[in-house]
Amino acid sequence: MKLTHIEHLGIAVKSLDEAIPFYENTLGLKCYAIEEVAEQKVRTAFFKVGQTKIELLEATDPESAIAKFIDKKGEGIQHVAFAVEGLQENLDELAAKGVRLIDAQPRKGAEGLNIAFVHPKSTFGVLTELCENPNK
Amino acid sequence: MKLTHIEHLGIAVKSLDEAIPFYENTLGLKCYAIEEVAEQKVRTAFFKVGQTKIELLEATDPESAIAKFIDKKGEGIQHVAFAVEGLQENLDELAAKGVRLIDAQPRKGAEGLNIAFVHPKSTFGVLTELCENPNK
Repeated sequence: MKLTHIEHLGIAVKSLDEAIPFYENTLGLKCYAIEEVAEQKVRTAFFKVGQTKIELLEATDPESAIAKFIDKKGEGIQHVAFAVEGLQENLDELAAKGVRLIDAQPRKGAEGLNIAFVHPKSTFGVLTELCENPNK
Repeated sequence: MKLTHIEHLGIAVKSLDEAIPFYENTLGLKCYAIEEVAEQKVRTAFFKVGQTKIELLEATDPESAIAKFIDKKGEGIQHVAFAVEGLQENLDELAAKGVRLIDAQPRKGAEGLNIAFVHPKSTFGVLTELCENPNK
């Protein structure tokens, strides 16, 4: 497994409209895109800091994972996403090592990335996403 | 405020001895240092991925913030630390904007960095650390 960098940090917020001005005006980051990911029932706002994106995530449905996370733990960091080379091979390697995967095959995530989630039961509580840019 | 990159991600674990082999053997990262920060009642293990460090944090005392975090939310990502230039000026700017600070003045953190925490009540639930390398 070769993780190259932290691609993004997923942060669950109740309201993008309230959180975006804080990230822009107080932290000095610039929101460069807002995207709805219907499949995951979220709306996300993107910022960049160094190599890493901050993705603010707002639920668009009470059944979304983000709504459930906030109900249980409150607003905060929900997941970390590592960039990898060779996503499918890495998933196969993890599965062979007995790591519990949420996605055994990559699927499409925000910004056209191929993504897969690893179950937090196998990662000491950290919901972990692996991503690969198919255009690289 | 000028955040240059994510300096590290702080991850609360029950046991470094159990978590380190996962980060090394499964995620393929290398633990390059273990340090005890007595003031914060933690023992931390450091890994590097791209620009960012992963700091695994194990409580050395039931009264440490890490023990309390795990009691309340379980193991997982506890804080994010941004690298800034001019830590004291940034803290003053945040205070002037009404942001609640845990540390109004920098103090010493792991690896000799000057650090200060911003209260999660002011950051949409994200315990946020700002750090500056005094040797840069």
